[in-house]
Amino acid sequence: MSLIVQKYGGTSVGSAERIRAVAEHVAQTRRDGHEVVVVVSAMGKTTDDLILLAEQISPNNPAREMDMLLTAGERISMALVSMALSAVGVESASFTGSQAGIITDTTHRRAKILEMRPDRIREALDDGLVPVVAGFQGVSIERDVTTLGRGGTDVTAVALAAALKADVCEIFTDVTGVFSADPRVVPKARQLDTVSFDEMLEIAATGGRVLMLRSVEFARRHNVPLHVRSSFTWEPGTWIVEEDPTMEEAIVSAITDDTSEAKITVSGVPDRPGVAATLFRELANNGINVDMIVQNTSLNNVTDISFTVAKTDLEAAMTACQKVQKDIGAAAVTSDDHIGRVTIVGAGMKSSPGVTALMFETLSDNGINIEMISTSSIRISCVLHADRVGDAVRHLHRAFGLDAE
Amino acid sequence: MSLIVQKYGGTSVGSAERIRAVAEHVAQTRRDGHEVVVVVSAMGKTTDDLILLAEQISPNNPAREMDMLLTAGERISMALVSMALSAVGVESASFTGSQAGIITDTTHRRAKILEMRPDRIREALDDGLVPVVAGFQGVSIERDVTTLGRGGTDVTAVALAAALKADVCEIFTDVTGVFSADPRVVPKARQLDTVSFDEMLEIAATGGRVLMLRSVEFARRHNVPLHVRSSFTWEPGTWIVEEDPTMEEAIVSAITDDTSEAKITVSGVPDRPGVAATLFRELANNGINVDMIVQNTSLNNVTDISFTVAKTDLEAAMTACQKVQKDIGAAAVTSDDHIGRVTIVGAGMKSSPGVTALMFETLSDNGINIEMISTSSIRISCVLHADRVGDAVRHLHRAFGLDAE
Repeated sequence: MSLIVQKYGGTSVGSAERIRAVAEHVAQTRRDGHEVVVVVSAMGKTTDDLILLAEQISPNNPAREMDMLLTAGERISMALVSMALSAVGVESASFTGSQAGIITDTTHRRAKILEMRPDRIREALDDGLVPVVAGFQGVSIERDVTTLGRGGTDVTAVALAAALKADVCEIFTDVTGVFSADPRVVPKARQLDTVSFDEMLEIAATGGRVLMLRSVEFARRHNVPLHVRSSFTWEPGTWIVEEDPTMEEAIVSAITDDTSEAKITVSGVPDRPGVAATLFRELANNGINVDMIVQNTSLNNVTDISFTVAKTDLEAAMTACQKVQKDIGAAAVTSDDHIGRVTIVGAGMKSSPGVTALMFETLSDNGINIEMISTSSIRISCVLHADRVGDAVRHLHRAFGLDAE
Repeated sequence: MSLIVQKYGGTSVGSAERIRAVAEHVAQTRRDGHEVVVVVSAMGKTTDDLILLAEQISPNNPAREMDMLLTAGERISMALVSMALSAVGVESASFTGSQAGIITDTTHRRAKILEMRPDRIREALDDGLVPVVAGFQGVSIERDVTTLGRGGTDVTAVALAAALKADVCEIFTDVTGVFSADPRVVPKARQLDTVSFDEMLEIAATGGRVLMLRSVEFARRHNVPLHVRSSFTWEPGTWIVEEDPTMEEAIVSAITDDTSEAKITVSGVPDRPGVAATLFRELANNGINVDMIVQNTSLNNVTDISFTVAKTDLEAAMTACQKVQKDIGAAAVTSDDHIGRVTIVGAGMKSSPGVTALMFETLSDNGINIEMISTSSIRISCVLHADRVGDAVRHLHRAFGLDAE
């Protein structure tokens, strides 16, 4: 008998019919002899609808009240899922984030979990019930309702799985698993049976849309095996587990792409200490997240610094750069919002020389120019012209032997 | 400076525009120098929509989960009202029933308040905030979310007003106050400035639709002055207060009507102890609420017992009567679902002989037959043929001098 935490996202509980299907699957999991804890998101577009309502009241609303408002969505779906379980003969009880003992800090809209006290969930399991827990929400140390930010329901599920020492946290979603590339870009993309936490972190960080970085980090830290699978097919999906040193690893597991960023280049910068610090402190002070940063080797004590930011932050970032341009003695600040990033990820890369060369050759052979390069031990990212991103992903997917037969 | 609890019903917060109007009125009340606690219902049809959703899952759902589901409605409206207050510069914070310290028993769907611990509401007031509290909901001694049943938001408002020792509990609704009769039945009905708790109890019990019996009882027990008024006109409405012995009282304050009941007559019943007990115990065991009961003086040790029940309970009540018919030795059980009740209510009735006579004469003069009569010290009810109810109310309204000029 295993203890399984099952997380169902918004599309998985998007209608009464879908909710009944979820209940049937939970019932089957119980008949197979397992204990189950269910974690749910709000139904379909509920959260968006609530945000629209709030915007009709005022464009700027207190974060505490936004949290109070948005958590109504999970409250609705968890009660309905619990009802559906009851209708198929599975005894259950729903619990809010607060009732489930998810204690957070006081940062409304993107609270961090400080402590898990899932006593009532344990009691419910001991009583033979299936606890149904509201995702995305907790209660702060000030006893106010908080939400965990984007991907928060996955975080709830992983945190509960860790606290309850569950055998697996199943993330049910509307795709069948993690793929070797985005199937909309690469028709020959293959579903992966297993990826390591490290690989999944890089995939999530560089454009993989299945899981948010934060929940993968949480799962890795607490070593909670994740199983990403579809609530439409109910077939096994992709396992995300700790790296097994005895296994031969794929050199490259996945190719990701991301066209949500823009590039800024600060050129003609004097190569002296403190310049980068001044620049990136100013960006940080304006709440701008910087992703890739590349600084060229200096020529004549003058260098260029390029970095990427979310396109939505481009204007604010340009303003910040222009503000410090004179202080740091830069010649010019330019930007390009027509770029994309292509990344290859693979744990086997560490011990396989030649991966970088093959990546660059593949791009070069296809006439694709590389504008920026950034690497980690299991990842290589290249910034390209946005128009060539699809081609690049497809060529690399074939070159690294990932194409499905 | 007064402390005012303001309750806003579903139509009062039925849209973003309505919510902004509520916020503006709260802001004005604050500018007038008062402390305000706001209690809100769910927006418009939200609760009905949630019930529909639940019915799509299953026709019979666990009461605990229904409560969890339905309380989402107030959570949404209270957050939006708090946002609207913030937008007009009034600092506020919303609180669930649980956060407001509304402790109930464990009877889901119609929980009773056991204790009020509004510490956080007091703290919020002391901090200069306007607390916005979810109506209709509490938390049970088992730490589960409960709802207080029909009219529950009024109960929340009155209970909070009592616990906080508020100067008045204002019930904002979609009518302008309590009327001398239903204006749809009597075009010349007048709005009442003041009614006593006792009168309001009788009005609520006999067909007045403005306030539920339960919240009036609660207000009377804790001596919380109520002020029923409109959130569309914002004009003063009707005050419901403790009877003032120094005041001259209207002999008749209001005429109410109710056509939601049916009449059952158990005839030819031996007039011996235990017969009525057997009959009404059987009805009670089937969860049937009996309203008026009339037993005729016996003739030859045989009597008739007539009583009224909600039309929706008629079939079950007939079954229950037929079950005990033989045991109690009754000759027949008959029913009539085409009846209506007309009631005159007035605290001055106690000291005014002739009221009963005038009522019966008025009905008789207009050819209206009385089928049943029931009285209390400040009320006389007559059961009539349903078709004559409107006429009866209009004639009585004129006869007792209530018609507006």
